[in-house]
Amino acid sequence: MEDNQHDLLIIYTTKNGRTGAMVEPVRQGIIDGGANAIVRSVDEVQWEEMIHAQGIIVGTPVRFGGVDWQIKRLFDVTVNQGYPGPLAGKAGGAFVGGSRAGSGAELALLSMLHVLLNHGMVIQGNAFSSHYGPVALRDTTDEEMTAVCLAWGHHWATLVQRLYPGASGQPC
Amino acid sequence: MEDNQHDLLIIYTTKNGRTGAMVEPVRQGIIDGGANAIVRSVDEVQWEEMIHAQGIIVGTPVRFGGVDWQIKRLFDVTVNQGYPGPLAGKAGGAFVGGSRAGSGAELALLSMLHVLLNHGMVIQGNAFSSHYGPVALRDTTDEEMTAVCLAWGHHWATLVQRLYPGASGQPC
Amino acid sequence: MEDNQHDLLIIYTTKNGRTGAMVEPVRQGIIDGGANAIVRSVDEVQWEEMIHAQGIIVGTPVRFGGVDWQIKRLFDVTVNQGYPGPLAGKAGGAFVGGSRAGSGAELALLSMLHVLLNHGMVIQGNAFSSHYGPVALRDTTDEEMTAVCLAWGHHWATLVQRLYPGASGQPC
Amino acid sequence: MEDNQHDLLIIYTTKNGRTGAMVEPVRQGIIDGGANAIVRSVDEVQWEEMIHAQGIIVGTPVRFGGVDWQIKRLFDVTVNQGYPGPLAGKAGGAFVGGSRAGSGAELALLSMLHVLLNHGMVIQGNAFSSHYGPVALRDTTDEEMTAVCLAWGHHWATLVQRLYPGASGQPC
Repeated sequence: MEDNQHDLLIIYTTKNGRTGAMVEPVRQGIIDGGANAIVRSVDEVQWEEMIHAQGIIVGTPVRFGGVDWQIKRLFDVTVNQGYPGPLAGKAGGAFVGGSRAGSGAELALLSMLHVLLNHGMVIQGNAFSSHYGPVALRDTTDEEMTAVCLAWGHHWATLVQRLYPGASGQPC
Repeated sequence: MEDNQHDLLIIYTTKNGRTGAMVEPVRQGIIDGGANAIVRSVDEVQWEEMIHAQGIIVGTPVRFGGVDWQIKRLFDVTVNQGYPGPLAGKAGGAFVGGSRAGSGAELALLSMLHVLLNHGMVIQGNAFSSHYGPVALRDTTDEEMTAVCLAWGHHWATLVQRLYPGASGQPC
Repeated sequence: MEDNQHDLLIIYTTKNGRTGAMVEPVRQGIIDGGANAIVRSVDEVQWEEMIHAQGIIVGTPVRFGGVDWQIKRLFDVTVNQGYPGPLAGKAGGAFVGGSRAGSGAELALLSMLHVLLNHGMVIQGNAFSSHYGPVALRDTTDEEMTAVCLAWGHHWATLVQRLYPGASGQPC
Repeated sequence: MEDNQHDLLIIYTTKNGRTGAMVEPVRQGIIDGGANAIVRSVDEVQWEEMIHAQGIIVGTPVRFGGVDWQIKRLFDVTVNQGYPGPLAGKAGGAFVGGSRAGSGAELALLSMLHVLLNHGMVIQGNAFSSHYGPVALRDTTDEEMTAVCLAWGHHWATLVQRLYPGASGQPC
């Protein structure tokens, strides 16, 4: 990888496939926005990959209004090793697959963002789409889901390029 | 009003009519559940009505991921007068009208519940419906909206009867 | 155990001892309030104990603004088996041990309450103490921690007695 | 003002003086970090000033676990005029003055951040200090309050310089 590439690492887990289906359009949106994306499941992601990335996007199914326990374990155990510091200043974001309106999708999304903020990461809202990150519910059509994931992938690509301009790839 | 009546006070405001349309099915659900309901807009509600009620249900449109400022003013100014104490132990709940998935409806709902918890009120979740209170989004059909509001009205009636059994109407 | 006993099950885990130190004063407060309390660590608690209890109080250290992953796993895996339904209508609450002000203690507390609300449990705020549940931070003195835990234990005992009056112990 | 200046607009209100006392050390921290800061009360701030700033930092007292209603009104009414769009991509942040641990300071802080995210603003957490923004409680010493406000002012200055490098001052 060249130094001037902007890499976003997508870490995800899925329960019944809804969150998993969001990964590819998010990845495509990132590429469309001019950045690179690496995809890893919560089981396979390596700490070194997290350290190396300029941004981390986490996909989780809604589990009782919060993030999946395996995602939580990744941050509580693995990521805790170097805390505080190693993820500070990187771009961050989250996407969730849920069931109906009011079933906790936003709460799960925000819980994930809280973890990222805890690490000193930089997150951005979106005035023109789902405000805090892509959300797909049971009644969300494939078309709508794809559109919001593509839009947010592009949004995240723009953020990481803005945070890491030029070739150095060094955060401020 | 007789002493053994269980009264829920519904306070609401609406922006484009979506939250306002939820008031009647919520009220009907409360009656179906065997309790009484009084409906007041945020402009007309009296502090004495809040003190007298055995439960308070607040309806607010989503405004930037939070409750409407007029609802907030009601609690910051009017309700603040007797704080802490006067609302402690009463039943509480909230419902919201929002736009699309991920536009802040759950965050607004929870923000309202935080206010009620702050006053020592008792709130209940729902495992079988929208978990934290009724949510109606732009794409929610009238049928779905009515169903979730009726279910929650009934849910709240059950809660207030459980908290205030018998004739005395006195909280523990 | 007699049928007219009101049992609160305390489930907890601790990281560096701060949350663990809150368990005993919470338990004492519950007893002072006239209810019973059973204490189980997250590793030893049995699903049958959760089903049997009239209320569940969960203690967790703050982990990156959320609940400990082992607590989350308990709910995502074990408790998920009978969902929705088995915990509906029970009393619920949470307490957390954190570090400094602004380090995520309230967010972790609320995240836990979201899980309990998801299950249809009944929670109560407190106008006269820490509003959403006991919080102990690094600079909280033992005296303050004990006082808030005793107050909340008593508060939870009152709630469970109010929800389950008399001998039957049956929820509405 | 020259084009290459990085301006952060601090908007605040205060209830009993605690939040107001945080304004000056936040402003000083921003200057120490190499950016400019303009301070406006919620009553005097102009919409044009918000549009012009490269970042907006909002200070609010904790009011029942949420932001002060006057702050909410500013965003619900004034800022709503141009929504969505005008604040998108700007840096954002919040600080709060509260009472004791568990009295809603973090919830109020996050509620404010939700508003800013709704507008598409960019926010950053902090791994080395109060994680989501400066929090001052009743028992926070002046020394601690000043330290956390200075640190966050510097943190925000760094963020805005990173988002708006060079002279153009144009967001991506």
